[in-house]
Amino acid sequence: MAARLLEGRPVADAIWQDVASGAERFGQVAGRRPTLALVGGADEAAAAYARQIERQFSRRGLAVSHATIGADDFPHHLQRLSADPAIDGILLLTPLPSGVSAEAAAQVIDPAKDVDGQHPTNLGRIAQRRAAFAPATALGGVRLLKHYDVALSGTRIVVVGRSPVVGMPLALLLIDSDATVTTCHSRTRDMAAITREADVLCVAIGRAGLITPEHVKPGAIVLDFGTNPTPDGALVGDVQTQAVMDVAGGITPVPGGTGPTTVAVLAEQTLRAANLQRGN
Amino acid sequence: MAARLLEGRPVADAIWQDVASGAERFGQVAGRRPTLALVGGADEAAAAYARQIERQFSRRGLAVSHATIGADDFPHHLQRLSADPAIDGILLLTPLPSGVSAEAAAQVIDPAKDVDGQHPTNLGRIAQRRAAFAPATALGGVRLLKHYDVALSGTRIVVVGRSPVVGMPLALLLIDSDATVTTCHSRTRDMAAITREADVLCVAIGRAGLITPEHVKPGAIVLDFGTNPTPDGALVGDVQTQAVMDVAGGITPVPGGTGPTTVAVLAEQTLRAANLQRGN
Repeated sequence: MAARLLEGRPVADAIWQDVASGAERFGQVAGRRPTLALVGGADEAAAAYARQIERQFSRRGLAVSHATIGADDFPHHLQRLSADPAIDGILLLTPLPSGVSAEAAAQVIDPAKDVDGQHPTNLGRIAQRRAAFAPATALGGVRLLKHYDVALSGTRIVVVGRSPVVGMPLALLLIDSDATVTTCHSRTRDMAAITREADVLCVAIGRAGLITPEHVKPGAIVLDFGTNPTPDGALVGDVQTQAVMDVAGGITPVPGGTGPTTVAVLAEQTLRAANLQRGN
Repeated sequence: MAARLLEGRPVADAIWQDVASGAERFGQVAGRRPTLALVGGADEAAAAYARQIERQFSRRGLAVSHATIGADDFPHHLQRLSADPAIDGILLLTPLPSGVSAEAAAQVIDPAKDVDGQHPTNLGRIAQRRAAFAPATALGGVRLLKHYDVALSGTRIVVVGRSPVVGMPLALLLIDSDATVTTCHSRTRDMAAITREADVLCVAIGRAGLITPEHVKPGAIVLDFGTNPTPDGALVGDVQTQAVMDVAGGITPVPGGTGPTTVAVLAEQTLRAANLQRGN
């Protein structure tokens, strides 16, 4: 039995469709496009990601602005963007200029424009089960589960990883969706015994191939957030995809699984920020 | 076999001892006592809690200020306290004046004076595993576990309850302490099967006697955060304490377990806020 392949593209397409019509409505009222400002990201990988965001946003009627800023002017630039009524969302790209910490930078973003959930206030609001902007990759995972009609209420879900950008917000979003959530991490003992209890297993720990068939309950849904580069330039996930397919009921491929939803959710939250700022 | 009774008083006493000497050192440098402002709390239960805080703080060299403020002036009062250099910590007491939401009020507190971790920024910083002020009851539970030498790293802990004041911050603090944490709540199915996996079981769901011996692994440590009033004016926890004592390895009584640590942690965090604001 081979697991169902849970591809991200149809999930992202459904989000993009809503975003495109929402951006059109916003434009009719506001006379401009919902606009995301990209900040930082001084290497080639960040530049490639920025181009991908720009291309996808512009196809659906959203705008992106991107300026390269030195360390000295960095906090002031973020303050200006936070105050600028023509900017709806702000996304920090790593690497930040040397000497600028991600923690300090995130604190300067207006939480109402923090469309990738990098400000602690947004993570705290998720933990308080209040409306918030979530880290886009984590929220994309929840969207993927809902798209494929995976029941969450009362479901036993194990999240492997506790990073502030994926594992932790994902666990909090799933608790808010009424799942019974266990968080595992590098210090967890006998991890396979715990992950085998999961009806849904979400892996975001950044270790290539950590999850083997022995970690997976037969029929479970497996979400792989890993994006580990291989020596030959490819990407592999945190799950041994081929082997786990024999056990799981459904699994996201890498690439093409949880990845494609990220930019779509970023656009969705940019549109939401734009509408909230206009009081729509 | 009867479980060891994990009383809160010795835990609180150890915290108070450090707080008293820290407050004395602060006074020598600053020429005043570390000061907590109480805000809100217009009923008799809140007044009793306020008197308890004042009595305990003043015995250890900390000060408390308390003003009754109407709804109209409430946000401005919080802003004044946040800006007042003679105030180190701010604690919101329920009930707030009618028309003032707890969410809106918490947002006005300077996170650097939010010594009961009510502002979402502090909860978010806990989730990001950064230095933060935690809700005092939740942090008191962690202190109790450490006081009684309960190992946390790699330990399977189940937290029953997901409230923003106890269950959720407790789960996040325990994850930060390297425990493997499962959060259960009202929508969890077959809760007893899950809680029986726990080496440490923390219960903060507000339902008198919900946890029976069937929920407890033999030898497990049980923390009971419940404070449910009985018809005759007593308090009972969320755990059937007497019955569970036959199974558990250790258990907190109600009252006298997790309760006494709360005000001590509040004082500790007020002192820490005072020192941070002076740059100590």
